[in-house]
Amino acid sequence: MRKKRLLNRLFAGRATDREVSVPKSVTALLALCSALMSERGEASGAKLASEVVASYRALGVAEREAFFDVLARSFVPDAIEIDRAAESYRQDRSPSRLMVLQDAVESPRQELFRRWNMAPGGTAALLALRQDLLKASRHHPDWAGVDAELVHLFRSWFNRGFLTLQRIDWHTSANILERLIQYEAVHQIQGWGDLRRRLEVDRRCYAFFHPALPDEPIVFIEIALTRDVATSVQPLLDPESPVVDPRRASHAIFYSITSCQEGLRGVSFGNLLIKQVVEVLGREFPRLRTFATLSPIPGFVQWLTTRGLTRLELGHGAAEVVATARSGVGLADLSVQPAVRDELMAACAWYLVKEKGDPDGTPPDAVARFHLANGATLERLNRGGDQSSIGVRRSIGITANYVYRPRATERNHEIYVKTHRVLAGPEVERLLRRWQRMTEKQRRSS
Amino acid sequence: MRKKRLLNRLFAGRATDREVSVPKSVTALLALCSALMSERGEASGAKLASEVVASYRALGVAEREAFFDVLARSFVPDAIEIDRAAESYRQDRSPSRLMVLQDAVESPRQELFRRWNMAPGGTAALLALRQDLLKASRHHPDWAGVDAELVHLFRSWFNRGFLTLQRIDWHTSANILERLIQYEAVHQIQGWGDLRRRLEVDRRCYAFFHPALPDEPIVFIEIALTRDVATSVQPLLDPESPVVDPRRASHAIFYSITSCQEGLRGVSFGNLLIKQVVEVLGREFPRLRTFATLSPIPGFVQWLTTRGLTRLELGHGAAEVVATARSGVGLADLSVQPAVRDELMAACAWYLVKEKGDPDGTPPDAVARFHLANGATLERLNRGGDQSSIGVRRSIGITANYVYRPRATERNHEIYVKTHRVLAGPEVERLLRRWQRMTEKQRRSS
Amino acid sequence: MRKKRLLNRLFAGRATDREVSVPKSVTALLALCSALMSERGEASGAKLASEVVASYRALGVAEREAFFDVLARSFVPDAIEIDRAAESYRQDRSPSRLMVLQDAVESPRQELFRRWNMAPGGTAALLALRQDLLKASRHHPDWAGVDAELVHLFRSWFNRGFLTLQRIDWHTSANILERLIQYEAVHQIQGWGDLRRRLEVDRRCYAFFHPALPDEPIVFIEIALTRDVATSVQPLLDPESPVVDPRRASHAIFYSITSCQEGLRGVSFGNLLIKQVVEVLGREFPRLRTFATLSPIPGFVQWLTTRGLTRLELGHGAAEVVATARSGVGLADLSVQPAVRDELMAACAWYLVKEKGDPDGTPPDAVARFHLANGATLERLNRGGDQSSIGVRRSIGITANYVYRPRATERNHEIYVKTHRVLAGPEVERLLRRWQRMTEKQRRSS
Amino acid sequence: MRKKRLLNRLFAGRATDREVSVPKSVTALLALCSALMSERGEASGAKLASEVVASYRALGVAEREAFFDVLARSFVPDAIEIDRAAESYRQDRSPSRLMVLQDAVESPRQELFRRWNMAPGGTAALLALRQDLLKASRHHPDWAGVDAELVHLFRSWFNRGFLTLQRIDWHTSANILERLIQYEAVHQIQGWGDLRRRLEVDRRCYAFFHPALPDEPIVFIEIALTRDVATSVQPLLDPESPVVDPRRASHAIFYSITSCQEGLRGVSFGNLLIKQVVEVLGREFPRLRTFATLSPIPGFVQWLTTRGLTRLELGHGAAEVVATARSGVGLADLSVQPAVRDELMAACAWYLVKEKGDPDGTPPDAVARFHLANGATLERLNRGGDQSSIGVRRSIGITANYVYRPRATERNHEIYVKTHRVLAGPEVERLLRRWQRMTEKQRRSS
Repeated sequence: MRKKRLLNRLFAGRATDREVSVPKSVTALLALCSALMSERGEASGAKLASEVVASYRALGVAEREAFFDVLARSFVPDAIEIDRAAESYRQDRSPSRLMVLQDAVESPRQELFRRWNMAPGGTAALLALRQDLLKASRHHPDWAGVDAELVHLFRSWFNRGFLTLQRIDWHTSANILERLIQYEAVHQIQGWGDLRRRLEVDRRCYAFFHPALPDEPIVFIEIALTRDVATSVQPLLDPESPVVDPRRASHAIFYSITSCQEGLRGVSFGNLLIKQVVEVLGREFPRLRTFATLSPIPGFVQWLTTRGLTRLELGHGAAEVVATARSGVGLADLSVQPAVRDELMAACAWYLVKEKGDPDGTPPDAVARFHLANGATLERLNRGGDQSSIGVRRSIGITANYVYRPRATERNHEIYVKTHRVLAGPEVERLLRRWQRMTEKQRRSS
Repeated sequence: MRKKRLLNRLFAGRATDREVSVPKSVTALLALCSALMSERGEASGAKLASEVVASYRALGVAEREAFFDVLARSFVPDAIEIDRAAESYRQDRSPSRLMVLQDAVESPRQELFRRWNMAPGGTAALLALRQDLLKASRHHPDWAGVDAELVHLFRSWFNRGFLTLQRIDWHTSANILERLIQYEAVHQIQGWGDLRRRLEVDRRCYAFFHPALPDEPIVFIEIALTRDVATSVQPLLDPESPVVDPRRASHAIFYSITSCQEGLRGVSFGNLLIKQVVEVLGREFPRLRTFATLSPIPGFVQWLTTRGLTRLELGHGAAEVVATARSGVGLADLSVQPAVRDELMAACAWYLVKEKGDPDGTPPDAVARFHLANGATLERLNRGGDQSSIGVRRSIGITANYVYRPRATERNHEIYVKTHRVLAGPEVERLLRRWQRMTEKQRRSS
Repeated sequence: MRKKRLLNRLFAGRATDREVSVPKSVTALLALCSALMSERGEASGAKLASEVVASYRALGVAEREAFFDVLARSFVPDAIEIDRAAESYRQDRSPSRLMVLQDAVESPRQELFRRWNMAPGGTAALLALRQDLLKASRHHPDWAGVDAELVHLFRSWFNRGFLTLQRIDWHTSANILERLIQYEAVHQIQGWGDLRRRLEVDRRCYAFFHPALPDEPIVFIEIALTRDVATSVQPLLDPESPVVDPRRASHAIFYSITSCQEGLRGVSFGNLLIKQVVEVLGREFPRLRTFATLSPIPGFVQWLTTRGLTRLELGHGAAEVVATARSGVGLADLSVQPAVRDELMAACAWYLVKEKGDPDGTPPDAVARFHLANGATLERLNRGGDQSSIGVRRSIGITANYVYRPRATERNHEIYVKTHRVLAGPEVERLLRRWQRMTEKQRRSS
Repeated sequence: MRKKRLLNRLFAGRATDREVSVPKSVTALLALCSALMSERGEASGAKLASEVVASYRALGVAEREAFFDVLARSFVPDAIEIDRAAESYRQDRSPSRLMVLQDAVESPRQELFRRWNMAPGGTAALLALRQDLLKASRHHPDWAGVDAELVHLFRSWFNRGFLTLQRIDWHTSANILERLIQYEAVHQIQGWGDLRRRLEVDRRCYAFFHPALPDEPIVFIEIALTRDVATSVQPLLDPESPVVDPRRASHAIFYSITSCQEGLRGVSFGNLLIKQVVEVLGREFPRLRTFATLSPIPGFVQWLTTRGLTRLELGHGAAEVVATARSGVGLADLSVQPAVRDELMAACAWYLVKEKGDPDGTPPDAVARFHLANGATLERLNRGGDQSSIGVRRSIGITANYVYRPRATERNHEIYVKTHRVLAGPEVERLLRRWQRMTEKQRRSS
């Protein structure tokens, strides 16, 4: 009964849409969507759904936006029905009335998307649809509901319980490897030779996959197995670097983690991936003692420029270095005096540990927030850890090691979530103390 | 913010539970559930979820019911918050306010179940939980909300797009085959020898599987490839029946379809399975002309007893046969006079085609409703089609052939849904005409 | 050139065959074989080979024997050519002349069988052919050459390097499991329920497979993981026996090993299978300390009857027990006085350790020879270890534990091969000493 | 008994070897080989074999040659025993005496290699060994026996019945794809982008694999599915060429076939691969009408230079073109007058169809011999079919289409094998007639 009313509105919606001149191709797609939602859709689901998907794919950018407009306006719950159900529930808090209300507020879009998914390749098509939606959504706040419902659906479908961890190596199909090359954004992969080195025996790469997308990694992580903490990423990426025996490695360095599906933005898996990989590696290589990232500090220079220089009362030399760093040079071309170097390292420690982002008191650096919330600690800062021009522009080449200690992550996570205190290792603490001495001296001297 | 309030209620809920003396084991499970819902749950999801699952599994029947009680009472949305969001939405029909309301009405249970699913084997555990719930739900109308939310979740997770069709044959693992033997209820499988015959080259068995349950068929169908319409099921099931060359078969007889997961009750796949199998078989065997079921008529005798005999003014002979049939004899032991036989066949046609179930005007027979709603037609009735005592008790041994014509199912489905008219083949029509003649003669003679 | 001559002989051979009235079907098969050996065979190998295989399969028993006769007589090397090549090699021991001789002595049958193998299912067909050949070979000493060449080919094809070890469990396909039921001869499998128990977590089953026979185990072994040395096989086979946690097991009991392919008779894999399984189990279960068989002693009663009673001067009681044992009773029905029991146990130790089979000085018991040659030691004898009537008939129910110690097998093997000395454990040595005491006492008393 | 004598000789052989100063590493390997052949080898085959393989791999080039010398001299049959067995067989032509002789002539090397194969990776190691042997064999005619025995073994092991046909596409592992790039010699693959185009939907690539070498293609073939006979290879290889719908293709162009394993030289699979691929493609694409190669004519320019120019009395222009072609220019840089062009095309037809290679009367061109012996016909010659400098240097850029007609190949093969007549299509016949006219005119005019 309820479904019928929804369908009526859909058709009514289409009538209205025509008035505001919806393109024919979109009207055709809407007719298919209506059919898919109808009894007929139940009878011939997969076939109709395939037509819907093909029809959507054939739309141009403007047509897709017109389609999103209709989705946002028309495939919505019946407001009157909602009012009635809410009032009814207000008068009697019974489970059955709650169920009626829950039913009333659910958008027909949800069911539309669920049926859309019956098409072969339907899940991929829905991810692509959301990607399209996100592209233009800044100018369309009214699409927020559509997006929220897609996210809701994806959170349900891409439940961790449905993802499988797969190792990626040189035995993996070219089809998947090619996607790593395309997706890797942290440290770009320069072709197949570069990739091959990253898949040697002293490297590891793991990805989460979803059964409906067998050729599409959801998120992947790259690891180097080494005999020391890696303080710089360039040696790890060097295709000519010698391959070492992984059974003798003591350190697993997580040097890159990449979310592949733009359509899954806001549905996070990185946290779970890191933890499972720590477990898997620990089992395979009992000699591994340290699981550490080699992470960028993306917000440091930006923060120095806007606030840090002043707040920390850094000297003229530091200001100059920061200005040069922003111009896009590599570290080799950036001459920094030893005193300024020390000053900047200490400032970086301050930035990551002491500075609070507004308004909730968490650290201002996104990468720091991610790893600290996962239960890692900030163990070390590396001068010249990323010598590329992008590394310099973001953090004057400094990188951070966040360390995951399997037994401590849960407790660390709780401390962090409750207090937003940044747990830092002795080397970082030393930098902070140095900072204190420096500023004290400065004050005294001033 | 919202999450925090929910957690507070959860803990509050637990406090209350204690007062009504919730068993310790259940309290422990609830504490784990709360942890799973907390920040800690985000950090160590899979591990905590595994503990939740193990802890639930260790509960006895009574403890599980106590747990369901808490689930039904405590893991519920905040009524005040719902009122507020509903009122807010009433005043402004904006997408954002709708989103707030949608968020407000969703039970914390949904999120609990989603996190529960992170455990290895979590999906299977949730199906088992619902099976437990259903067993005792008749006496617990207040659990309806929990059940509805599980169904909602399963409908999303077991979307057709995530199911894979797999052929089951003698190369399938014993692990799965054993489940067929356990689950098959229509025509019980009498051990491995019986099963083996059902998997020979002139038989086919297909099942839907879900990636999270690789060893558990969701629903399976059994088919015989024959050179004639099968009018009786016993020859098909005979382990000693000769194996024929399937490439020469003209008929695919769907003689059994079984839903395996009690936990998925109400989430239907049979319709989709039949249609995909018709497609698959059509491609593999281009000579197949007819796709027909050999179906029981489970409600016929029951209907005859309660209403049919009177309504159709059947004679004394028929009444006697019906009485004997209900006593549980095989067809061989049921002597029926030719005239009575004809009378019963005609009555059966009348029952399936003309009789309307209350109140919505659909046919009273569940199997008929299923196939007709799928777009099949009622093609033929078979006297002695099922000679087993259960076949006699249900329908005096009469079986029905419903036929699926790929090109016509969609149209048939629409006609049926709109008019509830039963589309019947010429043989069934002939039976109906005979019935008319018989009754007319009777009236004239009376 | 050489090939042509061979073909001429084949055709000539066929002419002669006709005179001795070779059946038409065999003549047709021979024509196909000739074609397969010809240039045409090179061009359309697989197709012709399939016809050859099909044609052979269609032959009756007598026809197959007629075919073997021709194989034995006609597809043979050219004697004159051999003489010439041998003489040539005698005059000049050059590699090239040796090659000519090697080429000359090779039967065309070898090439025929190699080409036969190009047919899909060709390898299985050749195994079946040898099985047929073996059945009647006792009456056909002239077939020995054909058989020897098949063995030579199989030894090459079934090289250990091409076999894969696979674990058999309840996830294995019914197709393969069914074969275990058929093939197991040591301790027959009583249907699927019995098999299932043998594949539980505290049991292991491994088989060698060849890539050309993916559904056919070559040889398989059954193991029980236990917390004690098993002294009796009946508890291990009991389908109702409780399943124990294999991680706590200290003993792996190899209670049955079965060669499946009669066509591979004389090509042995059991030795290699045992050794690899010891390795695999040792890795999976580091707590396992002992790898022991629970083996029959098939020749004991037979030997007692013909020689042992006299040679060991056993008393009247023992003779009576032996006579009853041979009549086919179970152990429960065999009343044996304690003194006779001890006498028989000691005699059995003597039989296995001291008695020498003629003429090469190896032990007379086939099972003992197998395990000792593999490097195992005779560790223990078990009274009532096999209580079945066959166990009684063979060895009055006594079984033997042979123990494999991974580090010692190589040395044991060498000792055994060089000296034929049976390495026995302390319990067996004790039995031997008792025997000595008994006989000494007897002598003194007589 | 016989084995023992062989072993004695082996050790004796080693003694002698020492005198001619066999390197220590080789002596150690020989000791391992002896152990592998001994009783101990039977007991611990796989482990010893692994040591043998590792020990061989560690040898340098000179050491390997020293090892081959010993193999050639020492692991040989006993000449006296051969003489005796040959004489014995001469006196009595019984199967058993033949068996003794066959046994006597077999080299212990055969058994050594068979045991060597028990090592994991043993098959690959033996292929590598033969590759090493072949490299230096030109200077070591005495190694011919070793090589012949390896070939004999490989022919048995790499029987067509054990090879599997696999399609190679973009879903294949990078590991295997990388090998295609390495191995392809006919038309080199310029990196992964080039390879990707060759694996698009309108291209096909198939390879034979052996179970013991799962990552190593044995031989592979590349095919383009087109709507016309391809007359030039460059458009097929162009990475930017548009991808067409393969279901509409009428022609399958086999443009490259590559044997990958140097160690299998002389054991041919190309013939079988082509035939099976013709079958597979015919089934998948019923619209395919023509299966044609696009083949090089490797010997044409060479033949023209040495004999053709004179024999065919070609003019000065042709001679000049041939001289330039040999200098290594691309076709674009070779200016040829139309008359000379026609002359060369006709000469090429003459070369392929009429010229006879010595001494057996087969065509002088190796590629022609291969396809004609497979039952193909020479259908067409393409001017400028391969414009690369290598194409020009070999055949002035002319390519040949050999056509496989499934129903005719067997007959064609027989005709070719018996008569060495080259079956040519009408276009080639036309070129031959033109040639005749030209020469007649020439003669008349001279």
